[in-house]
Order: sequence, then structure tokens, then C-alpha cells
Amino acid sequence: MTSQAATSPVASDDTLIDRYRDVRARTEALCETLEPEDMVVQSMADVSPAKWHLAHTSWFFETFVLARGDDYRCFDPAYEYLHNSYYNSVGAQFPRARRGLLTRPTVDEIRRYRAHVDASLIRGLERGLLDGAARGVIELGLHHEQQHQELLLMDIKHVLFQNPLYPAYRETPAREPTEAPAFAWIDCPGGIHSIGAEAGDGFAFDNEGPRHRVLLEPHRLANRLVTNAEYREFIRDGGYRTPSLWLADGWALVQTERWSAPLYWVERDGEWFEFTLAGLVPLDPAAPVCHVSFYEADAYASWADARLPTEAEWEVAAAERPPRGRFLDFGRLHPAPASGPGLQQLYGDAWEWTRSAYQPYPGFRAAAGALGEYNGKFMCNQLVLRGGCCATPSGHLRASYRNFFYPHQRWMFSGIRLASDRGDRAA
Amino acid sequence: MTSQAATSPVASDDTLIDRYRDVRARTEALCETLEPEDMVVQSMADVSPAKWHLAHTSWFFETFVLARGDDYRCFDPAYEYLHNSYYNSVGAQFPRARRGLLTRPTVDEIRRYRAHVDASLIRGLERGLLDGAARGVIELGLHHEQQHQELLLMDIKHVLFQNPLYPAYRETPAREPTEAPAFAWIDCPGGIHSIGAEAGDGFAFDNEGPRHRVLLEPHRLANRLVTNAEYREFIRDGGYRTPSLWLADGWALVQTERWSAPLYWVERDGEWFEFTLAGLVPLDPAAPVCHVSFYEADAYASWADARLPTEAEWEVAAAERPPRGRFLDFGRLHPAPASGPGLQQLYGDAWEWTRSAYQPYPGFRAAAGALGEYNGKFMCNQLVLRGGCCATPSGHLRASYRNFFYPHQRWMFSGIRLASDRGDRAA
Amino acid sequence: MTSQAATSPVASDDTLIDRYRDVRARTEALCETLEPEDMVVQSMADVSPAKWHLAHTSWFFETFVLARGDDYRCFDPAYEYLHNSYYNSVGAQFPRARRGLLTRPTVDEIRRYRAHVDASLIRGLERGLLDGAARGVIELGLHHEQQHQELLLMDIKHVLFQNPLYPAYRETPAREPTEAPAFAWIDCPGGIHSIGAEAGDGFAFDNEGPRHRVLLEPHRLANRLVTNAEYREFIRDGGYRTPSLWLADGWALVQTERWSAPLYWVERDGEWFEFTLAGLVPLDPAAPVCHVSFYEADAYASWADARLPTEAEWEVAAAERPPRGRFLDFGRLHPAPASGPGLQQLYGDAWEWTRSAYQPYPGFRAAAGALGEYNGKFMCNQLVLRGGCCATPSGHLRASYRNFFYPHQRWMFSGIRLASDRGDRAA
Amino acid sequence: MTSQAATSPVASDDTLIDRYRDVRARTEALCETLEPEDMVVQSMADVSPAKWHLAHTSWFFETFVLARGDDYRCFDPAYEYLHNSYYNSVGAQFPRARRGLLTRPTVDEIRRYRAHVDASLIRGLERGLLDGAARGVIELGLHHEQQHQELLLMDIKHVLFQNPLYPAYRETPAREPTEAPAFAWIDCPGGIHSIGAEAGDGFAFDNEGPRHRVLLEPHRLANRLVTNAEYREFIRDGGYRTPSLWLADGWALVQTERWSAPLYWVERDGEWFEFTLAGLVPLDPAAPVCHVSFYEADAYASWADARLPTEAEWEVAAAERPPRGRFLDFGRLHPAPASGPGLQQLYGDAWEWTRSAYQPYPGFRAAAGALGEYNGKFMCNQLVLRGGCCATPSGHLRASYRNFFYPHQRWMFSGIRLASDRGDRAA
Repeated sequence: MTSQAATSPVASDDTLIDRYRDVRARTEALCETLEPEDMVVQSMADVSPAKWHLAHTSWFFETFVLARGDDYRCFDPAYEYLHNSYYNSVGAQFPRARRGLLTRPTVDEIRRYRAHVDASLIRGLERGLLDGAARGVIELGLHHEQQHQELLLMDIKHVLFQNPLYPAYRETPAREPTEAPAFAWIDCPGGIHSIGAEAGDGFAFDNEGPRHRVLLEPHRLANRLVTNAEYREFIRDGGYRTPSLWLADGWALVQTERWSAPLYWVERDGEWFEFTLAGLVPLDPAAPVCHVSFYEADAYASWADARLPTEAEWEVAAAERPPRGRFLDFGRLHPAPASGPGLQQLYGDAWEWTRSAYQPYPGFRAAAGALGEYNGKFMCNQLVLRGGCCATPSGHLRASYRNFFYPHQRWMFSGIRLASDRGDRAA
Repeated sequence: MTSQAATSPVASDDTLIDRYRDVRARTEALCETLEPEDMVVQSMADVSPAKWHLAHTSWFFETFVLARGDDYRCFDPAYEYLHNSYYNSVGAQFPRARRGLLTRPTVDEIRRYRAHVDASLIRGLERGLLDGAARGVIELGLHHEQQHQELLLMDIKHVLFQNPLYPAYRETPAREPTEAPAFAWIDCPGGIHSIGAEAGDGFAFDNEGPRHRVLLEPHRLANRLVTNAEYREFIRDGGYRTPSLWLADGWALVQTERWSAPLYWVERDGEWFEFTLAGLVPLDPAAPVCHVSFYEADAYASWADARLPTEAEWEVAAAERPPRGRFLDFGRLHPAPASGPGLQQLYGDAWEWTRSAYQPYPGFRAAAGALGEYNGKFMCNQLVLRGGCCATPSGHLRASYRNFFYPHQRWMFSGIRLASDRGDRAA
Repeated sequence: MTSQAATSPVASDDTLIDRYRDVRARTEALCETLEPEDMVVQSMADVSPAKWHLAHTSWFFETFVLARGDDYRCFDPAYEYLHNSYYNSVGAQFPRARRGLLTRPTVDEIRRYRAHVDASLIRGLERGLLDGAARGVIELGLHHEQQHQELLLMDIKHVLFQNPLYPAYRETPAREPTEAPAFAWIDCPGGIHSIGAEAGDGFAFDNEGPRHRVLLEPHRLANRLVTNAEYREFIRDGGYRTPSLWLADGWALVQTERWSAPLYWVERDGEWFEFTLAGLVPLDPAAPVCHVSFYEADAYASWADARLPTEAEWEVAAAERPPRGRFLDFGRLHPAPASGPGLQQLYGDAWEWTRSAYQPYPGFRAAAGALGEYNGKFMCNQLVLRGGCCATPSGHLRASYRNFFYPHQRWMFSGIRLASDRGDRAA
Repeated sequence: MTSQAATSPVASDDTLIDRYRDVRARTEALCETLEPEDMVVQSMADVSPAKWHLAHTSWFFETFVLARGDDYRCFDPAYEYLHNSYYNSVGAQFPRARRGLLTRPTVDEIRRYRAHVDASLIRGLERGLLDGAARGVIELGLHHEQQHQELLLMDIKHVLFQNPLYPAYRETPAREPTEAPAFAWIDCPGGIHSIGAEAGDGFAFDNEGPRHRVLLEPHRLANRLVTNAEYREFIRDGGYRTPSLWLADGWALVQTERWSAPLYWVERDGEWFEFTLAGLVPLDPAAPVCHVSFYEADAYASWADARLPTEAEWEVAAAERPPRGRFLDFGRLHPAPASGPGLQQLYGDAWEWTRSAYQPYPGFRAAAGALGEYNGKFMCNQLVLRGGCCATPSGHLRASYRNFFYPHQRWMFSGIRLASDRGDRAA
């Protein structure tokens, strides 16, 4: 957690209660269409069962706010071990890869746990029993819960995809087909810029700071995300069979995993379909390609004679714009085609892989204590993604927001924006 | 499937309907205490989710009886692939190790599937539309479903054991502690005997025949199963740390798996507890040791200066007695201490490991067609167990019944009876 | 080791010295065509480097004969750990799967170690310092060394096969092509027979006894081993793609390992070649198929509407004949086509898979002490092979000899003889 | 390969011949103390057998220089496949992890291959048949061979370490014990600096360019490498048991691999020893800690309340100094204690882990063709190390030199230099 969070002006208790209720209710609303059976299964080690997300987000408030108060009545002492994600400072954790083996507590029991935590926490806020530090942690806990809202959607999508029946998470309204705007380069100037979250300037995770200067060379960014049609062309051109396009580790993975398309693409009788949260649908050529690994994004960029942007390039461009885009509230639960002139889709639709390794900013120091484990210990082997996606809760994103995944992962809503060093190159 | 089954006198339709209803209802009754969450999870590749058992046993009747009739309306064509266990002749199978990834069909949908199959099959029987072959397959299907009743209990026990909360499947009534009778050898004569199921002499699986002659040398059998107290003594004496007691493959497994006790034994503050279907309870010293692998059974026998019986030795002794014992109807769901003089516990309580490799009897030939895959293709790498256990449906067992597992497996209710070649040895 | 060996009349010291020198020299002669580089590599965990075989066979004499005397000067104390194969009673072992990581001692150092052991042991014999028990162990050690002569050839063949250059171990003289005799069944009577080695009746390993009675039903044995031509027909007929022919574990292996032919068959431009100790040669259709697993042998038998023999069936037939055949001295280092009428190839050419699990004979008890680990602890998960092969030292084999391998293994010279229960079946 | 190399002034043919002979002879000299047995083994996938290094470095000249000429007589066409490391553009490669399975060609055959390549190449140079591009590739090939000289030493050290006899690669002269200078921070200014190799300014690998501007904040560098004594204190203080010091991936590895000390540390009776190329020796407390992974380097820095330097911080400091240090010619084959005031050990002794991900510099583009695979495709998942080590050929290193390894690797001579952001911190 961040000194930013701790020192930034925290909302009044009334506002905080409202926000707390709203965020917590939204998590539960995401489970409305799920059966208990859907909420138990863990389809790979990276995925957590939906009921675990419901419990863990409550555990966060219980552990870091309620249990530090004097008179909290613990709901069940066994839950600490079961629902701790990775906080070694708190204690041992039930092994992550085995979360899907826990049938109990049931979904109903976890809902009662949530209600218990909510009642305790709201009572504390109503009675003014929580100091500024605690309120800061509640603020962090709400952002944490929003992250798990997105994870829950990513995870349930992966769970349902294991099933040859391709069940839908939720029906979404049909849309008129549209076309994406033509590809174009947008020129971006070089120079010294500042990126990162400024302490005291609203909530930010600790990994977004300190704000610091970076030196950029002149470059260009694509006007929109790479489309399914463009990516299909990469496939048709033998992209998955051409080692010279790939990083060595990526090419090794293509061969051992026999990758030949993005994660959720399904070929039937020569036609491409895509598994979405609304079930299996024909591939929309104008929509952004999604669920690609860093290796695929990088190989596509090589094929297109371009490269991926750095996170600083992205942030400098994004910081000039309000963080608006097609997020979770848009209701589509899938990336939509771009429209309009200029730099589009910086926010929402699909996370954008950058070529930047997820590393500490100059001067970064993780906070002391358990919440210092939130971000800092993951600053190795991962790459930064920027901009949020169709499953990111609205209001959660900002220009300095750093998401991070391993280069082989692709169950998140990850897409591609091209960049280029020089003016003389075409995609 | 067996020519025996096909040629043995099949029950009249009315009796068959009654038996069908009874067996099918018992399967569902076994799930009464389970939550939907419990019924989805697969805790290892050997285990199947409870809801899969509910579906697969229905699939069996649908595939091998109903679908071969003219006018069956299929419940859902996708189910064939999802619920086929291992019948290559029927078609491809959803991978066994991934059964726990299927959240759909839900438990409720599978119950509707069961009702649909039941209604269709009973209608066929009531209307006399099913010929003798079909009625023979129904008979087989009922024995098959009884096998899955036991599997369902084995599997749910393993699932619940993964949970550090050690939830109970069902509370069972407390019992007065009793003592087991003292260990004693029972002399058994040698000579030429016949074992195996006789064609036409009631139902038997194909692997139980043909009935054939075997040559036995004089030997001795223990009067009862090895108790927990005796096995605890083996542990105290360093049994799990003494390689000379073990088969080479067993010793390798002890080291890689770090085995130090039977599967469900749990040590707490120096005391042994045992996980049962009624939850975690103090180890009953008089009860039979259970959930041991063949390797452990064999090492125990070496330690006791004895050996395991052959399946022929067991069958010759058992064939003289009615197949009565503490099976599923006894309601304890756990092996109980022996009592009384003479050869005890041949049936029920715990399956008895034999030293006999599971191999075809002389003259055995698997049936043609899909049902020939029922038993014959597993006749390699496994060992025979005899006698049934506390989770075996009452009425399911007989002297010629051959169960079989790999030597490393121990999630079934498997115990140990000692045997000996000579009269001058003590256990 | 066996009470048989210990109590059987042991050769006079002079004869024993001659035999010792002969066997030891033959081991070294097998390495004449090898480069030091060839003698280091371990191509899979089952294989040992040639230099390890040279050392381990010396270690056997050192550990079980010399080190038990009073005045032996140890060559190098570190060798005990490095060259102990699997004798837990002797002490810890350098891990088997890592034998190929040891570059030292070098081949030359190991040759000096051999010379040291030989000089010490022959001195002891010459001076009459070794008692009957020690001379019995020397006898065992010579049979042990002969087993390693065959292992050395199996292993070096596997090592050289890893190399796309397919280097030859040794050139062998070309032979005129011949035809195999037509397939025919030989009738064999049932009844009570005795098999196994009789104590006091010449050397035998402990696993060959006790001699005991078996009950056989009338059956038939094929007149010769299955030929490459016959096996090629099985492949052409889709044998490796037809699950109904296979044991379940075998079929799983066919798919994961992508087996489509015996181990050393290599297809080039539609023609089959076979890697032999003389390099890659065109497949000889008349020669016995070799280097097949038990699963392949069993599947072939199913395809041929036959079965594999039991070890008792084989031994009863073989015991009537002298143990003569094309063994190592024949010099071909590869199975040769059968010739002549009647039951051929019982000995030599290729080991014959039986359907018999490798289990203790009635009354078997492993010897006390380290040499009790020689055979008994492997009596699980393996199947018995009979008859020796082209790489078995001449004079090593006898009718009661039991070899054993896991059903998936095929780097030994293993072939197929068919058997049948009834008179009305054709292969 | 680099445009730098191609455009930089290439040596005259006479000088090139001399350098070629010198570098090639040095490679062979490194094998003088090795037995053929030592030169075959591959102790893990990262390691290559010594004889493979001898062959591959020749393959490089053969493939990229000789085979592109008109009249080269190929030594053996099979070698291309066997000795290609990872150049997909050249063709398929014998699998890296199986290099240790190749016993042929033998060491002698490979020496003949080397002589053949050398004669052909020198003949071409003497006759002036090689154009500037070819001479540029020869230059690259010599630097490539120097890299393999270091790899050969790293690899043979790892091979010999597998052996419980701990054989020495070569005896090295004993040295007087010395003390390392006290730890001190050296202040380094911030500002805009240029790093990277300048085109035309002497040989450099392509990954060292383009030269470009970087922005540094003021920082501090440790005056010398972390010593064994200091690292031992980290261990004593529970460093390997304290998760809060570790990156998450590092902590996971510590647990699965049970790391408790650097790779070659061996504890005996409470004393630490270190395996070196001269065998097992008592740990020198004043010498730099070596053979640590990035995770260990990072955890040590956390424990010391410091951090690792960035590669730019290192290069800016190093560029002011001549690239002199204790490299391979120093003859010690192991890192030696620092001495003297100021910034010590920037070059030689041990590679210094930086916190910089190995990524392309702004404007980097891999060369076209096979030699473009030399560096660029590895720019993911690895971290940069700087400064060379005791096994790096003298003259091979320069300030812009970028070495790279995965964070878990530690068989290279990798050490730790601390850095710090602020002036008020102590190590």
C-alpha cells in the first residue's frame, strides 16, 4: 500500500460508507448469473474460484481493518488461512493452486461472511471508531476489491471455456456491426516528461510512484488497437510458424503449447469464432484482438515492422486525456471496435501490452508491513500493461495505473497497440 | 460384460423395475448431505466429481440400452462425450483428469437427466419393449451403478479431506469402544480347488470367469484384519524408515511422497486421528487399518514375518461362507472392529489386498463390443482386492468378486489380512 | 542370493579362478570398440554408462567378498557410494538417474580398479583364503557380471541410438537372407507339472525357486517368434491406432509417447530400417521382431487372436530341451530368423514376453542380508521374460531363468511368442 | 551481429590471422587438463559439453564464413545439425537439452574438425579471398569464441561439481590471505548521460547499441563487491528463511529448490567450503560472493537496506575507467578480494547483477539474417550483468558490454554490487 493513499485526503465517513456499500454490492451482482457449481472451480493455478474472490476481498477488510480493532468478533478463525492470498507477513496461506479443492465454506456461507464483515465495518465507520489510517486501508480495500471484480470475470471466463458446451456467463445485447477506423500513426514528441502518481494527488497504488522524470525520444503510436482482422492476417501469413518473428522464449512456448491463435479463438469448419462472456460468437473483424500473450503481441509487432510502446510513452500520451473508455459499466464485457479520429482506445476495451518490464520506479520503496507485499515483490519477470479493459470497473483506472502479467499469460483482456521509433515505417 | 450375465436367468420385468428404482434411488440418497459445491470438485485424477457419477451411471443405461432402441429421445447429445468414462468403442471421452473443470451441467440438470433416463427405461420395461439382451445389460448397469455408489463415497471422502476444515460427509452414531479378538492363524488345506464364477449361476462380471481349477499348497490365514493398533506398532518400530521391508517401487514412493502413515491418518500433538466420512475422529485401535496401499500392506506383512494371501486362497476360504458382513447398509461408513471366533471379516469392513496380479483367468476372453472394455483392458499393473468394504452396497459382493487397484492407490477402503506358508510362523 | 547357490557344490578353486578370469575378461572385451566418450553417457534413467558397469561389477566382488575378509586394501573408499546399485543394506547410493553425470573416475581409473579387485580376489583364491560362503558369492558375482554384460550391450545400443549419426557399436558379418519357417501351433498338454530351480541342482538365482507344482490346462505355443514381416503387417493394419487391441495403460502410453513401431525401427522414404549394434540396416522381414514392450506384445497377440504364454507354459516346454540357441557367442548381436521344424527359438535370439506377473513363487523367501535385495524387492509391477537373447552370454541361461521388466520397457532384446488356449484358433 | 562490427575498421589480414590463431589456440588450451570423459557430459540443460563448445565455435566460422565461399569442402554435412546452437535461419538444431547424449563425434574427431576449419579459413585469409563482410564475421566469430571460452569454464565447473569427489579442473597457486577494504559508498551524480556502443568505435555486439541518452538521478555505488563474509552474515541472519526480503518468484524458488546458500557453497561440520575450479577449498571471507542468482542478489540488497544498480548507473561509472581487472589471464579462475581505495572491481572478478531487464535500447533493431538471432531474440525475461569476471578472456570486455541471464541462474560467476538512491543510508 502507498504512502500516497495514507497521506491523501481520505473521504468523509458518509461518502466512504456509500462507496463501500456500492463496491461490495457490485461484486455480488457479478455473481448473479452464476450457479454454485460455477463458483467452486479453479481451471488453472492462475485462476481463483469465484467464491474465493468473494471471501478473499472480505478477508482483506477483516484482516487489515477489523482485526486491528479491539472488539471485532471473528467470523471463523479458519478463514484467515483459507483466504489469505500471498501475505507472508500475515501468516501461512492455503496453497494457491489448490483453491479449487475447497468445497467448503459454501457460497452461502461466504455470503454470510461478507455480510458479517460489512456489518462490522459499517458499524465502525458509523460510530467513528476508525482512524485515518484505517480509513486509508478501507480506501485501498475498495480498489483491491475492484481489481478482484475484474479478476472474477477473467477467471470465470476461463473456467467456462474449459467446457465443450461453451456456456455463457451472461447474454449481452447484440450490436450492429461496425468498421474500425483505418490504421494511422500518431506522432509523439520526445523530451523530458514526468510520469507516475504524485503523492497527495488522489488514490494510487504504491507501484505508481514516485512521480519521476523520464527521457523520451520522438516516436509514434498507432491510432487504435490492433483488430481481429489484422491479427487474422498475421496468422494467415504464417505468423505462428515463423521463428524469426518471435522472442526465443515465446517461440519455445508456441511449440510446446502448440499455440496457433489467441486464447479464446475457436476454429470450426474453417471459420473463426471467439469465446466471450456471452458464449461462442463469430469473430468480429473490427473488434480489437484480445487474450494475446506478450510474446504474441511482440511477434505481431515484429511482423508489422513496428514495436510495442514503453509504459512511459503510453502514460505521457494518456495523461493528456480523461480516463474514459469502454469499461465494465459499458456492459458489453468484450472489447468493441474503435471509432473516431485521433488516438483512440487508450482507456478501456483491452489492456495494452507495453515492452516495459515491471520494475520499481526510481526511488520506489515498498511500504513496511504486510501491505508492502501488495505490489513490490512482484517486480520481476512481468511486463506492464496499461489502460484497463472492458472488465475493469469504471472509475478504477487512471493514467499512472500499472497492471502487470507474465509474458506467457493471456487469460486477461490483453490487446496490442503498435508503436514505432521512426517516421519512415508503416505497419 | 459377461456372457454369464447375458445367459443367466434375468429377473422378470417387474422385479427388474423394482430393483432398478431401488438402486437408482440409493445413488441419489447418497448425495442428500452434499452441497452442490461438494459435487463438482475432483481432488485428483483418480477421483470423479459426485455429479459426474450421477450422470455417468445414467449415461450407461442411455448408451447401452436406450440409445439402441428405436424411439429414444436423447436428453442432450453433448452428454455422450462428457459422461463416457473410458469406452473407446462408443467414442472419444472428455479427459478424465479434467472432469472437475466442468461446472455445467449443474447438479440440478443432471438430476433431470437421471429422471429422463429413468422414465424412458421404466417405460420400456413396463411396455415389454426390451429383449433379453437389453434386460441383461440393465442387470449389468445396476451392478455398475452399485460400483459407482462405492466410488462416490471413496471420492467424496478424498475431496473433503483436502479441506483443512475436515468437513464431515455425514454424522454417524457414536459406538461403544470394543476390543478386537486376539490375532490367530487359521489353517487352510492345500489341493486342487475351483474358483471363479460359474456361467449361468447368477450375475457375475466377466473378469470373474471362467471358473477354473487352481492348485494350492497348505497355508494359513489370519483370523481377522490387521488393526490400527497393530499398524501403529509397525509405524513406531520404524516401518516407514526401513527399506528392507519394502518392495523397491514402494520404497521409492515412500520417499518421494513422504509417506509416514495411512492416507487419512492425521497426527496432532502426538496423537493419531483418522479422517472418516463422519469427520476427524481419534484413531480406534481395535478397528481395521484402512486406506493403505499395496506397498504398505506388503511391507507390513514383511515386518510381521508373514505375507499377503493370493486371491485363490481368499476365495476358497470365502466360498464356504455366505457373503455377509458390514457393508454399506450397516451405516457406519467405516471399518469396525472384528468380533467372535474363527475366520472373521472376510466380507465387508475393508477390501483385502491380495498378492495376486490382476490378470485374466485361463480361458478368459473379453466380450465383443464396447462392454468388452468393462474389465479386460485393465488386466495389467494392478492387484486384486477381495471381500468388499463398509462402502460396498449390501448384496453387491460375492466370493468370486475381483476388485483391482494399482499398488500405489489408497483412497479406497483397503485393509490387510495376513497369510503364511508354514505352520511355524507367528505374526 | 540363494540357498541354492550357497548349498550347491561350488567349483574347485582352480576352476573358479579360470571361470573368474574368463568372465571378467569378456566384460572388458565388450568395450574394445568403444571410445571413452561412449562409456560415460546415460541416455535414460534405465541405462547405465558402460564405465559404470565396469566399476559396479567389480564393486560387487569387492563389497560382498573382499571387504568381508581381513586384509583387503580398499582401492578408493568413495567408490562404495558411487558404484552401489541398489543395496540399501550396504549404504546410500549415488542416485541412479545421475550416473551419467560422473566423468570421474575415468575409464582408465576404473580399469585399474578392476585389476586391483581381480588381483586381490585371485590371490585369495590361490591362497585358499576364501571359505565356501565366499566362493558361493563369487559364483553369484560371475552370474551377476554376465547379466551386466548383456545390460552393457542393451545400454550402449540405446546410447548410440540417440545420435542421429547412428554409429555402430561393432561391424558384424553380412549374412545371406533366409526365410523363416511358416507359422504353426505346437500342442502342449495340460496337467500338473513342476517348475522352478531345484535346490542343490546347480546354480540358480533365488527368484527361480522354490521348485513347485503348477496346474496347466492344455494349450498351444507358436513354433517360433513373431517375425518383423508379421509385425509390420500389424502396423499396416492400424495396430497402433486401434484402442480395442490394447491394454488401457498401453494405449495411454501409445498416445503420450506417440509410439508407432518398435523402439529401433526407423522409417525413411517409406522403407523400414532397424538400428542394430552394427548400425542402421534394412529391416529383415524374416528376423524376429525385437525391442517391443509388453503392451505391444500383448496388442499384437490380440490382433493375432492369440495370447502370450504364461511363464509356466514356457518353462515346461523349455525344460525338455537343452538351453542352446543363438546367444552372445553366436556373434551376430541381433536376433536371427528361425529355421527348422518344431518348437524353435525357445532359447536365444530374443527374450519372450510372458503374461506372467513377476511374483514370488509359493514359499519364496528372500535371503537375509544385502544379497536378499538382489531379486525379491522387484517382485511387483514387472512381467517375466524367458529364454535369453542374442546378447545373453552363452551358458548363462537355463529353463528356470526368470528375467523381468516393466511393461513399458523395450530397450532390451524382447520379442514375442504367441500362445493359445484352444485348438480352434488361428494366428 | 552488428552494423558496428561491419562498419568498424576491420583488422588487416595479417593481424586477423594472428588473432584468429591466438583465440583458437586458447580455447584448446582450456581443455588441456580435461579427460575425454569430462568433455562429453551435460549436467543440466543450460550447460553444454566441452566438446560441443569446441565444435560449435568451429561451426560458427564454417557456417557464416566458409560455407558462404565457393570452394569450401565440408568436413561432415551432419555437423551442421549437431552443432547449430539456436540459429533457426540456418536450420533445425539437435535439441539443446540432449547435447550430452552425443558420444560421437569424439573429442579427437572434433579436434580434426577444428583443424580443418582453421586451415580453410587461414588459407582464405592468406590468399585474400575474404571480403570485408567476411572479415567482419570472423571478427565477430572471435568474440563469439571468447564468450564460449568463458562458457566452457562455467560449464565444466558445473559438471565437475555433480561429482561427490569434487575433482579439480586445474590446480591454481595458493595465495596469501588478504582483507577486503571496508565497505563504503561512492557518490555518483545524476543528469543526462550517454551510454551504449558508438557505431564505428571498435567492435561491439549489436545489443550494445545504439548509443543513446539516459536520465539518471543522483545515487551511490558500493566501493567493491559484496564479500563472502558479508553474505555469510546474511545467511546467519536468516536471509534464506525471511520471505519479506525476497521477490515473490525468488521466494518460491528458495522453497522448491531448498536454497540455503550460493550454488557452490558446501557445509561440512559447520564450516563453509566453496567449490572452485581448483576443487573444494575453505571459503575465503574477503573474496567476493559468487554464483548467486538475481533473486539472491536482490534479497541481499534488501537485507542491506540498499538496492542493485541499473545498468546505466554501472556503465556511466565504468566508462570513465579502462576495462582492466582480474580476467582470465590473471590465472586464478576465481574472484579475488578487492584492494585499494575508490571504486574497485568494476571489471573482472565477478559479473555484477543489475536491476535492469535485458531489453532493447531505444532504436535497436536486430540485423537481418541469421546473425540477427545472436542477441535480439533473448531480450525478454533476463537481466543484465556487467563487468566480466575471472573467467572472461582478457580484452573481451568493455564498458558497454551487456551480459544477460535469467534471474534464477547462478552457474556463471555472478556477484553483487550494492547501490542506493539516497545519501542517508548505510549497508
